[in-house]
Amino acid sequence: MQVKDSTTSTSSTEERKELTSYPQENVDYYQKIKWNGWGDTRKFIHTLQPSGTVAITTPTVSGQPLPSLKKFILTELTINGQGQTDLENSPSLTVEDIKLPLPRAAPGDFARELRAIFKPNQVKEDKFARLTHIYGKSLRDLIRLRIGLVENAPDVVVLPESHEEVEKLVLAAHRANVIIIPYGGGSNIVGACEPIDQTRYTVSLDMRRMNKVLWVDRREMTACIQVGIMGPDLERELHKSGVSLGHDPDSFEFSTLGGWLATCSSGHQSDKYGDIEDMCVSFKTCTPMGTLELRNGARAGAGLNFKHVILGSEGTLGIITEAVMKVHPVPQAAEYYGFLFPSFNHAISALEQMRRSEIIPTMVRIYDPDETRLSFASKPSKGAVSEFFSAAVKKYLQYIRSFDMTQVTLSIIGFEGPKKQVDFVKKSCFDILAKNGAFGLGTAPGKTWAEKRYDLPYIRDFLLDHNMWVDVAETTVSYTSLIPLWKEAKKAFVQHYHAKGIPAWICAHISHTYSNGVCLYFIFASRQNDEKEMTPYIEGKRLMCDIIMKHGGAISHHHGVGYEHAPWMSRYVTQGWVNVYRKIKETIDPKNICNPRKLMPTIEEEQGKEN
Amino acid sequence: MQVKDSTTSTSSTEERKELTSYPQENVDYYQKIKWNGWGDTRKFIHTLQPSGTVAITTPTVSGQPLPSLKKFILTELTINGQGQTDLENSPSLTVEDIKLPLPRAAPGDFARELRAIFKPNQVKEDKFARLTHIYGKSLRDLIRLRIGLVENAPDVVVLPESHEEVEKLVLAAHRANVIIIPYGGGSNIVGACEPIDQTRYTVSLDMRRMNKVLWVDRREMTACIQVGIMGPDLERELHKSGVSLGHDPDSFEFSTLGGWLATCSSGHQSDKYGDIEDMCVSFKTCTPMGTLELRNGARAGAGLNFKHVILGSEGTLGIITEAVMKVHPVPQAAEYYGFLFPSFNHAISALEQMRRSEIIPTMVRIYDPDETRLSFASKPSKGAVSEFFSAAVKKYLQYIRSFDMTQVTLSIIGFEGPKKQVDFVKKSCFDILAKNGAFGLGTAPGKTWAEKRYDLPYIRDFLLDHNMWVDVAETTVSYTSLIPLWKEAKKAFVQHYHAKGIPAWICAHISHTYSNGVCLYFIFASRQNDEKEMTPYIEGKRLMCDIIMKHGGAISHHHGVGYEHAPWMSRYVTQGWVNVYRKIKETIDPKNICNPRKLMPTIEEEQGKEN
Repeated sequence: MQVKDSTTSTSSTEERKELTSYPQENVDYYQKIKWNGWGDTRKFIHTLQPSGTVAITTPTVSGQPLPSLKKFILTELTINGQGQTDLENSPSLTVEDIKLPLPRAAPGDFARELRAIFKPNQVKEDKFARLTHIYGKSLRDLIRLRIGLVENAPDVVVLPESHEEVEKLVLAAHRANVIIIPYGGGSNIVGACEPIDQTRYTVSLDMRRMNKVLWVDRREMTACIQVGIMGPDLERELHKSGVSLGHDPDSFEFSTLGGWLATCSSGHQSDKYGDIEDMCVSFKTCTPMGTLELRNGARAGAGLNFKHVILGSEGTLGIITEAVMKVHPVPQAAEYYGFLFPSFNHAISALEQMRRSEIIPTMVRIYDPDETRLSFASKPSKGAVSEFFSAAVKKYLQYIRSFDMTQVTLSIIGFEGPKKQVDFVKKSCFDILAKNGAFGLGTAPGKTWAEKRYDLPYIRDFLLDHNMWVDVAETTVSYTSLIPLWKEAKKAFVQHYHAKGIPAWICAHISHTYSNGVCLYFIFASRQNDEKEMTPYIEGKRLMCDIIMKHGGAISHHHGVGYEHAPWMSRYVTQGWVNVYRKIKETIDPKNICNPRKLMPTIEEEQGKEN
Repeated sequence: MQVKDSTTSTSSTEERKELTSYPQENVDYYQKIKWNGWGDTRKFIHTLQPSGTVAITTPTVSGQPLPSLKKFILTELTINGQGQTDLENSPSLTVEDIKLPLPRAAPGDFARELRAIFKPNQVKEDKFARLTHIYGKSLRDLIRLRIGLVENAPDVVVLPESHEEVEKLVLAAHRANVIIIPYGGGSNIVGACEPIDQTRYTVSLDMRRMNKVLWVDRREMTACIQVGIMGPDLERELHKSGVSLGHDPDSFEFSTLGGWLATCSSGHQSDKYGDIEDMCVSFKTCTPMGTLELRNGARAGAGLNFKHVILGSEGTLGIITEAVMKVHPVPQAAEYYGFLFPSFNHAISALEQMRRSEIIPTMVRIYDPDETRLSFASKPSKGAVSEFFSAAVKKYLQYIRSFDMTQVTLSIIGFEGPKKQVDFVKKSCFDILAKNGAFGLGTAPGKTWAEKRYDLPYIRDFLLDHNMWVDVAETTVSYTSLIPLWKEAKKAFVQHYHAKGIPAWICAHISHTYSNGVCLYFIFASRQNDEKEMTPYIEGKRLMCDIIMKHGGAISHHHGVGYEHAPWMSRYVTQGWVNVYRKIKETIDPKNICNPRKLMPTIEEEQGKEN
């Protein structure tokens, strides 16, 4: 690995060296990803010295310039056009600087039971293992790691390799009143895997060694999979049998099938292949009352469909270990096109018409004008904000097509499947797109999107390194409420910070579409004022959640609940269902050992009305 | 109404006259349908005297001959080819003959509360109202009515007109410990609406006056509907707005949206439009703990999707009153074609290839060779069993195409949607069908199917009138287990009855298809030996359920559970989930007033191992 030139990156050079000295096959995933930032330790955005150019380094490319990003940040994150003149540094603490709470003593026989169930290398009690299993990857999580704000930590990290081990562990934990928190890829950004209860011995159950595809049935087009498998490993294994799950969330590279199931994940191509609950046939869940199994079948039409009691339960009812998933043939064709629309409204109008036509693409992403600019600015090629497409094209759009260049909206539209189906759907959609003023950019933006689709969180680390922050909020919203919500949220967010004299920036995109609504995804940024002070981020997030709820949006479309969204759950699912959930929880997990204080507000929190 | 000539039909002539004298708009549905048989009082199959010809009478056609049906019955329902020489009569009792148990006294304030909530004409305590709300339309139900076997009956039939009325009623019933059993169309064949608990005052809640489409939103493509609406009324109302639900079960004419939701219904076109749970966005459920609401949104991705706690609960957790459903444009094209395959295996092979191609029809029905013959024999035109298609076609198939005429398999394959989509899908499917030896019959069989698709239960009434019975069992089964299950069930059923010297007949069809399996639907018949003895039917049903479970099939695909399938539920959903369900039930309905003793075995039944 070569890094020519870097400022403070998200982990110390020494630590990185130490980690990369492991033979790859003996390294657990938590040792390969950043402890205080996003993704692969070998990939980060940084500034080249002495030029000050912003660049990206990856395992294969070192210091590739991102020529427009810095200018974009400095000109966009402003108050009335007034921003900073240059980036400020705000380095993270190192692992050595962090102080973890002392581990609690394992109660009763639990330590002996752990030794009986697991081999020594499956049980980790060292600082680095504990540190890397406290948080997920939310803004709050990263900031707390960077400033050393750690109030609780798991006492032990356990890495199971089979369903049977998890089953034994959960029963042992139930007997000993030990907390079990499942840890998949750790990419969650709502606090789903953080230990909150400080009173009890806590296990973080890192599922990532349970990474085998157990079987593929090409007749039924199903596969049985250990749920600790990461996205890329899963697809690689399935491709060997000529099939694909087709689930591709933003977190794909660093999240697991189990995480997707437990949080009701949704992927880029879910418009075609379905959300994770549609792909899922059955699974095993290890609970304190024993393993709950589901029958493997095409449809559960006799009585309640119990899979939905576990899907979305985020480890609060037990640990999913193995799942049977629907798969589909690796698509014969996969074509992704870029389009520019005269406005966000034009693009939404085209989307609605495609939906009404019943002939729909595999993916429709629509970036609002602000995110359109961001999208071009973060490209690793020439093209500043004001030059995000060639002068000739710009001139054509502006003068011949009468585009208002401040309203230009980029859309990436994808088609997957058998070639003849792709051609049929594409033709129908292209007709609708043309009628709505879309200007085709060909497949180049689609290729760029495909290559860079997982990279946005690396920009967040770069912002945190430079005294800024960025967070996100997403929702499911009806077509009717989409524009009112979009307008109000964008205006309110900026006003909130400007009123306090703090620069602010916000954009949005549509990431998933349905016949009766879309997923609207906001990205918002501001400047850090005091690293010890969490209020600015929490205020931004709360503001966005309240506006979303006001417009009838879901508290989350696919990020889940954790504890970040729990305060809104009584309003979102209604109090009656919160009460039903609590009884289900009491039945399955009477001692509340399964990821306590997540998903729903506790009764105490509810009474305190903490939001 | 003219009936030229009829033997014992399913209701007495006098009674029919009385009913048809009501002005249609003031007649409740339960007064328009047969009390002891299927469907419209004005539609039945009967024998013309003195010719003995079997004919069908409908509100528009009187005594139209079904020239092949009688011969089919006499030659197929046999032991080693030995059957009856003519039909035997076995008339039903009349309403007057039936003795109902005396009504129980309403406890506490309940009678006063009923009067406060409802207008007098919404509360019925007369014999006919009570009699028509005891049973559904299972074979057991009809036989018990025909022989007067009535051990329990609701004490009152209540016909609510609004959500608010149901809400008040359920709370009043909870206070007074009164049982509430929802009654939709009453088409259920698993005992779902029968009062079993004889100890408590019982309300049958006839939902059919709650029959309004409250709104249609053509932008979101959703409609809010009172769930007591019957299939034809629902589609007629939706068509006024240019949209359709597209849910078309066999019971369509005599079942309600609420029944579909409560039993996880599936329709003929569900391969395209989804099963009822896929169409359903949200609904209100009146429970003893208050009304449980669901948010209206494109996706429930934050936490558990609680709609699945109510879907399939068959009134055991509360009463669904209003639902928001996805709708779609009334299809521009709807084309249904008939095909003959050389064998059932050929047809299944074509189905699997269409599924693998990912370009699939709206409907694929595949009749096995026995049901193929039944299908042609029940047509109201010329064509005996041995002549079910023209001699020329038969010769062509037999000699040129080498079809074994005993193995010929009929399939009806449908395509709905925008015309260009229909054409695209059709072309792809037709190519696969041709490769699998299918012989196209054009649209005529499709038209016949569409016209006659709801008529099979009328044959059941005719058989019951003539000392025979017919019952059904359906399941979801994988492609791998489909043929083994089909073979074993058919063989075992016939052997079981033949061993006792009783004639028996069985056929099957595939009614719904999925990427990982199908709905396999058996129809089986035998002769009644003693009308007082329920054992023969119960044995047949039990035999079929056991074989289905042995092959990994679901205990039901879309008929639901009621009490007929409850004994198998612990095996089907596994004991752990039965326990979870019981806790959910205790939470929502602590006094067990909501349709008690349905869906799951009681703990006592489980300990007695009653199956």
